[in-house]
Amino acid sequence: MQFSSTLLENAVSEFAKLPGIGKKTALRLVLHLLKQEQGDVTKFSEVLARMRTEIRFCQRCYNVADADICSICSNSMRKQEMICVVENIRDVIAIESTQQFNGTYHVLGGVISPLDGVGPDQLTIEGLLNRVEKEQTEELIFALNPTIQGDTTIYYIQKKLKPGSLRITTIARGIAFGGELEYADEMTLARSLQNRLPVESYVANR
Amino acid sequence: MQFSSTLLENAVSEFAKLPGIGKKTALRLVLHLLKQEQGDVTKFSEVLARMRTEIRFCQRCYNVADADICSICSNSMRKQEMICVVENIRDVIAIESTQQFNGTYHVLGGVISPLDGVGPDQLTIEGLLNRVEKEQTEELIFALNPTIQGDTTIYYIQKKLKPGSLRITTIARGIAFGGELEYADEMTLARSLQNRLPVESYVANR
Repeated sequence: MQFSSTLLENAVSEFAKLPGIGKKTALRLVLHLLKQEQGDVTKFSEVLARMRTEIRFCQRCYNVADADICSICSNSMRKQEMICVVENIRDVIAIESTQQFNGTYHVLGGVISPLDGVGPDQLTIEGLLNRVEKEQTEELIFALNPTIQGDTTIYYIQKKLKPGSLRITTIARGIAFGGELEYADEMTLARSLQNRLPVESYVANR
Repeated sequence: MQFSSTLLENAVSEFAKLPGIGKKTALRLVLHLLKQEQGDVTKFSEVLARMRTEIRFCQRCYNVADADICSICSNSMRKQEMICVVENIRDVIAIESTQQFNGTYHVLGGVISPLDGVGPDQLTIEGLLNRVEKEQTEELIFALNPTIQGDTTIYYIQKKLKPGSLRITTIARGIAFGGELEYADEMTLARSLQNRLPVESYVANR
């Protein structure tokens, strides 16, 4: 693309660095911003810079936070003795959006994946083990994606935990609501048969 | 969506204001920026703010420019007596990318469209008429989209021009390269028959 302005060209190439945004989309976004009020664009740019400079990670659960401890960990209404272990911040947001979980989180920052060069030391597993020991945690719920890497991570953490009264669970796997049996993969269907539920509890939860 | 950080939430909602970007995409972009070096994000934000504050519009052709006169108008190698009239900046970039046009441009800023409340006064038609009079323009090429609004705009400007030696043309309409006759609309096909070219000139230009 040929631009008659370097200012425009620079802005377009910065936008085009974002994932999933090509040159044409970048140009569309920049021309949109060019049409907005100057104050709005200044605000946009300030919010971005502030976000990157000031955002912190919770020292307890490694979730994004505005302070040393995130708003979930510092909320005394939440069950501090229940920890939901997730891969990343996006999973925290997804679970929070269900408004069904009232415990705290622990963000691993990924899962063990030797092929991608991710070992236990790159994750926040050490922090989780310390937390469980210090805080008298009662239940650890693994909410990881059902992949080999996710299962390896669960296995690794479980082995590292000292035997005691800690309850360790994972979220249920099965046929999704709105899913059709016919199209479900065999593994999911087989597991959902193994882990069948009494109808009373199913009806009560709907 | 539930966020545990207002800094993150603000950044996501700013991104989600951009056209074609929803909440989920905005979150993906923000989390990507969060993983980048602090310097890179600061640069991104500065480039955006500078673009909006410092970019100017060429006083002659209304194209985006870094100075009072854009780099196309101030280029003495370009035929200043040939003006290509376009709707917006994106059209300038599209034509420049062909590297086949060596004249100057005039950006109207839209086309006459009473339904959308756009009259001749909202466009830079006055500036174009002044330019043609002052600069002894030899040719005016209309490169507007072939819509009723585009045609109305051409008609309006043509009526306002004083009769003289000025040549007024529009870009060719016809079957696109790679297009198939079978699927072309009747209007385009009919026009491309009317405006047929001698084979020699067609072969020479390929």
